[in-house]
Amino acid sequence: MSSSFGTIFRVTTFGESHGGAVGAVVDGCPPLLALTEADVQPQLDRRRPGQSALTTPRGEADAVRILSGTENGLTLGTPIALVVANRDTKPGDYAEMSNVPRPSHADFTYQMKYGVRANSGGGRSSARETIGRVAAGAIAEKWLRLKAGIDIVAWVSSVGVVEAPDLIGAGLTRAAVDVNAVRCPDAAAAKLMETEILAARDAKDSVGGIITCVCRGVMPGWGEPVFHKLEAMLAQAMLSLPATKGFELGSGFAGTRLRGSVHNDPFVQKSNGLGTKTNYSGGIQGGISNGEPIVFRVAFKPPATISQPQQTADFDGQPTTLEAKGRHDPCVVPRAVPIVEAMAALVLADAALLQQARS
Amino acid sequence: MSSSFGTIFRVTTFGESHGGAVGAVVDGCPPLLALTEADVQPQLDRRRPGQSALTTPRGEADAVRILSGTENGLTLGTPIALVVANRDTKPGDYAEMSNVPRPSHADFTYQMKYGVRANSGGGRSSARETIGRVAAGAIAEKWLRLKAGIDIVAWVSSVGVVEAPDLIGAGLTRAAVDVNAVRCPDAAAAKLMETEILAARDAKDSVGGIITCVCRGVMPGWGEPVFHKLEAMLAQAMLSLPATKGFELGSGFAGTRLRGSVHNDPFVQKSNGLGTKTNYSGGIQGGISNGEPIVFRVAFKPPATISQPQQTADFDGQPTTLEAKGRHDPCVVPRAVPIVEAMAALVLADAALLQQARS
Amino acid sequence: MSSSFGTIFRVTTFGESHGGAVGAVVDGCPPLLALTEADVQPQLDRRRPGQSALTTPRGEADAVRILSGTENGLTLGTPIALVVANRDTKPGDYAEMSNVPRPSHADFTYQMKYGVRANSGGGRSSARETIGRVAAGAIAEKWLRLKAGIDIVAWVSSVGVVEAPDLIGAGLTRAAVDVNAVRCPDAAAAKLMETEILAARDAKDSVGGIITCVCRGVMPGWGEPVFHKLEAMLAQAMLSLPATKGFELGSGFAGTRLRGSVHNDPFVQKSNGLGTKTNYSGGIQGGISNGEPIVFRVAFKPPATISQPQQTADFDGQPTTLEAKGRHDPCVVPRAVPIVEAMAALVLADAALLQQARS
Amino acid sequence: MSSSFGTIFRVTTFGESHGGAVGAVVDGCPPLLALTEADVQPQLDRRRPGQSALTTPRGEADAVRILSGTENGLTLGTPIALVVANRDTKPGDYAEMSNVPRPSHADFTYQMKYGVRANSGGGRSSARETIGRVAAGAIAEKWLRLKAGIDIVAWVSSVGVVEAPDLIGAGLTRAAVDVNAVRCPDAAAAKLMETEILAARDAKDSVGGIITCVCRGVMPGWGEPVFHKLEAMLAQAMLSLPATKGFELGSGFAGTRLRGSVHNDPFVQKSNGLGTKTNYSGGIQGGISNGEPIVFRVAFKPPATISQPQQTADFDGQPTTLEAKGRHDPCVVPRAVPIVEAMAALVLADAALLQQARS
Repeated sequence: MSSSFGTIFRVTTFGESHGGAVGAVVDGCPPLLALTEADVQPQLDRRRPGQSALTTPRGEADAVRILSGTENGLTLGTPIALVVANRDTKPGDYAEMSNVPRPSHADFTYQMKYGVRANSGGGRSSARETIGRVAAGAIAEKWLRLKAGIDIVAWVSSVGVVEAPDLIGAGLTRAAVDVNAVRCPDAAAAKLMETEILAARDAKDSVGGIITCVCRGVMPGWGEPVFHKLEAMLAQAMLSLPATKGFELGSGFAGTRLRGSVHNDPFVQKSNGLGTKTNYSGGIQGGISNGEPIVFRVAFKPPATISQPQQTADFDGQPTTLEAKGRHDPCVVPRAVPIVEAMAALVLADAALLQQARS
Repeated sequence: MSSSFGTIFRVTTFGESHGGAVGAVVDGCPPLLALTEADVQPQLDRRRPGQSALTTPRGEADAVRILSGTENGLTLGTPIALVVANRDTKPGDYAEMSNVPRPSHADFTYQMKYGVRANSGGGRSSARETIGRVAAGAIAEKWLRLKAGIDIVAWVSSVGVVEAPDLIGAGLTRAAVDVNAVRCPDAAAAKLMETEILAARDAKDSVGGIITCVCRGVMPGWGEPVFHKLEAMLAQAMLSLPATKGFELGSGFAGTRLRGSVHNDPFVQKSNGLGTKTNYSGGIQGGISNGEPIVFRVAFKPPATISQPQQTADFDGQPTTLEAKGRHDPCVVPRAVPIVEAMAALVLADAALLQQARS
Repeated sequence: MSSSFGTIFRVTTFGESHGGAVGAVVDGCPPLLALTEADVQPQLDRRRPGQSALTTPRGEADAVRILSGTENGLTLGTPIALVVANRDTKPGDYAEMSNVPRPSHADFTYQMKYGVRANSGGGRSSARETIGRVAAGAIAEKWLRLKAGIDIVAWVSSVGVVEAPDLIGAGLTRAAVDVNAVRCPDAAAAKLMETEILAARDAKDSVGGIITCVCRGVMPGWGEPVFHKLEAMLAQAMLSLPATKGFELGSGFAGTRLRGSVHNDPFVQKSNGLGTKTNYSGGIQGGISNGEPIVFRVAFKPPATISQPQQTADFDGQPTTLEAKGRHDPCVVPRAVPIVEAMAALVLADAALLQQARS
Repeated sequence: MSSSFGTIFRVTTFGESHGGAVGAVVDGCPPLLALTEADVQPQLDRRRPGQSALTTPRGEADAVRILSGTENGLTLGTPIALVVANRDTKPGDYAEMSNVPRPSHADFTYQMKYGVRANSGGGRSSARETIGRVAAGAIAEKWLRLKAGIDIVAWVSSVGVVEAPDLIGAGLTRAAVDVNAVRCPDAAAAKLMETEILAARDAKDSVGGIITCVCRGVMPGWGEPVFHKLEAMLAQAMLSLPATKGFELGSGFAGTRLRGSVHNDPFVQKSNGLGTKTNYSGGIQGGISNGEPIVFRVAFKPPATISQPQQTADFDGQPTTLEAKGRHDPCVVPRAVPIVEAMAALVLADAALLQQARS
């Protein structure tokens, strides 16, 4: 069950990085939603490798095919199977690593857990696994947009030590985010970030970063206390992504330094009902959406795969030097933007349907 | 299902802050574990209100009773029902707030979600709900300790702007943590933290903080990719706690500023097998434990309930001034230490049993 | 998780027959349902031992207490904990059986599964476990009645070889069912059944029977293909009850002998929409309710506990003679009527909420 | 979640009868199981249409392809995606039925539930959905055979009024079952059954039947009380199959007519431990396997699709005559044999892994 997520709107992903295909089955999508591959492909294209000089050169069209669950361009309410073939697989690149677990990658832990691991490219722990999530998330997102006018936009808010200014209230669109390859809508910061990423790449190194995500238009009442509070599900969703190390909602870690009298969000009358004057809460109170924008940040570590030689040990404990040959991104955050959006959409769609059940 | 957590080792909690009782049912605890109330009470006592001048004066003995699932002091493998009666309830304290949702509390969102809310003291959103978690977690923890020698210790690592030095590698025990009321094992920092908490209280205000938790002795192989990765379940567990705003594993948000060549944890031979030289990963790689200590931090906001007057609006949108009368903590982190430990234990026990199933 | 049932409307039961208490936690009950103990007690009273000469003389008031989830007589949408204390426990009655697994009871299998079993009275495998189900089912039933006008009535349709005439279309009420102790609304058959039960008792023996259940007023559209089809969930629910050996829907096993041209239910216009002329389908087609009455039957074996000596073997494989002393029913079906109704209500309430989620 | 089944060994199926493909994702299969398409195809071939004169002439090779979860012929412990393309689709056959719900089929209920339904051939309610189950079940079965020596054999025990003699103790193999097209290993009964099926077909009619299934070699201790008792999961599994109307374990409905003194299964010492002299229990006591063969029967109604004209009503309630043109089986039981085996295997594999988790 560990490859499934969600209670009503439920996605199950499958696929290794160098196997036949990757994909997902979406169960519980409401019927009569207009849906074709064209609704899903754009987010896959934003996630695709080889988009720019900042990303891995692996060449994958990542064209999705819907195998079930729709007829005449409408969902039937039945499971939607989504498949993307793997094409540019180069198993040979990984051959020499077979007895050397790559530092901070999942080779060692998969071997310890399963007693076996995919020989090539990380298998299931590869970022390629997220294709199924992005495809499923695109469906959730379309439903949220049409059903409830919800708008989810994520962007790169830091790369290494370069931080963009606060853009949470800027009403950003995806077009504004995609204006540069790094997916940071602040031009000056984006320029510095790009420099940082290219510097890491040229140093055969990698660099981390942070993605900020805002979900606008979420009505009050979504989220299921106590264990399925909305922020708890977002946290699970984000920490289930490869390379993530942290999640914070609203004021997050910085908020711990404030006094309650500052941090509390007083209520004020707004055009569409009761709202809050500030939004330290990040749009969620007591685990339930309050109608304000949901704001969260996700930390991504510097990718574990780097081209420079690393002193480490092999599975037998013998010291060795490892030099990676696989293709990889020097920084994952530009491509992770649609992945974060997809997971947010999956969490929200499920929360919406669960709340609909209560009446 | 939102009040249940875990797949095999599964806890279901119940109870409002001012109802008849709070508690939990633990399903899936392995049989033949020695278990009586005496195993559960100590962590409840650490969570209990009224422990010190730093906590709410609500007087609750919080004595737990086991109603089922054991016989002759041994678990039967059947559901263990744990009940703690509510005694010191003062519904009257909350009467005047009935038409004014407390800022940054859950009154508004519960009302919007359910169309009704407990009149008194937060109902299900109260920290009192965590009693069931702590009781269940004590059982999980005992099983982990006896079965696998696992040791879980959390402490207060910051209060407001006061930060304790890094104690992750210090081999802390609970006795060392409990040496002062603030539950920070560094005496100097603890003194400053206590001053900060008392200052907030005297200012009719509140203050946030951070808890760090270390789980030692976890064997490699626990955690279920891809959606139930170990850090994903920890993140869900921690963000399901009242007042939490963030979670980070290992290097966390700070790790995003590092280069991969620094951040990677090289493998080295250790006495009990392959380990890592550094632990930026926080004991988890690819969603699976790697045998190193699991290290994470949880951010707690300043409590929403403060005694000073607040300008806000009532449910009708009319501006009003709210002055809280209920009893409350100026800072939750000292009492949240056993709660964080309990949730960590629940996550680990379930992960252990899921891994046992695979063979 | 094996002591929980349902996805949205979810019950978790706990308790052994001779422990401190039995009960249930109901999570996901919609808010604002009027609910007090008085709504739950009547079905517990119908299930209670000692009702008549036909049932075990164990004297239990089985008075239920609601510990959480309601305030001022209304549900809050939060978990409802229900507890019934065990009072008339006589562990001594079972002492001598400790090394002899009772034939066709669960002593042997519990011991093999858990490595331990309750010393007294069947523990968790006792029919006493169904108290939590009946209490939870009473809540589900009330919600179904108020929300959707649904009416669930079960009765004893056979005891041993005595079969009542077909009463499915008779519009039976619970009052009509309860007119005699055996809970068969056909007076002549009831008389014969009673004779049969008393004869079994006097012979220190036991006898089986069948319960028929009709659910009227279920609207079309409930049930979740493919694995949670309505009949699949009913089948799981009924076969999870102690002593059940079979389930059939509508035409059931007898329907296999018919030709399709006879068995098909043609559509006809009815006052409230499209209906079917016949109801061989039992109110469910393709796993989804069709608006016709849902009709099913459940087979209960003769109780395993009998007072006459039995030739069997002890845990060591040594032949021995077992003579039971515990109190027990010579036939379970009269008391099982409210239990079947409860499980049907739990299935339907969950199906209703799942269908509500889809829109 | 309604298209998923199982807790640890979990299958998710997808696909409509006339869409692009049908298939399944198996999550939780243990790693290091030798597995290729050749392990899965044989049971699909036994389920395939067009095998004999007794089955629908729809021509489908039903060749399965494994897209993920294996490498070098071994499972990786990751999700196994299985896909079978639909080829011989004839949507035109169903065009005229669009406003006439077929009696006792799922057209009406799907329309009421989802507000839409597949135009062609039953969509998700088609028996074609079972392909994913059979593929997944073949994997479960291989694991059960290699891991625990378990042997699952089902056969046709009745067709219409023709009943085969009791073959439960005959040690049947699949080869013995497949000796004739009707899959009844008793030659005389098989001949009569075949005559009955052909007679129904020639009369443009259909006929029902019963499948008996025996699972040998199941060790004591599998099954999870109280809601996931082994018979409860088997009942859910079987009643989730298209066209099923009943399930009974061991003595079943007939057992209700017996006295307990006859029906009880006394314990006796056997070569491999304690066993029972008789097996009225059907291999399960208290919801847990006892080591004896698990024996159950499943009732299948006469197929709803028949070629003769039927008086019915259209969606508007207008009387009409319906004459079906789609291809269909006059009797489903011969092809349902591997489907029943597959579902039994899925239940047992999951029960085995759940029991493994407990220790």
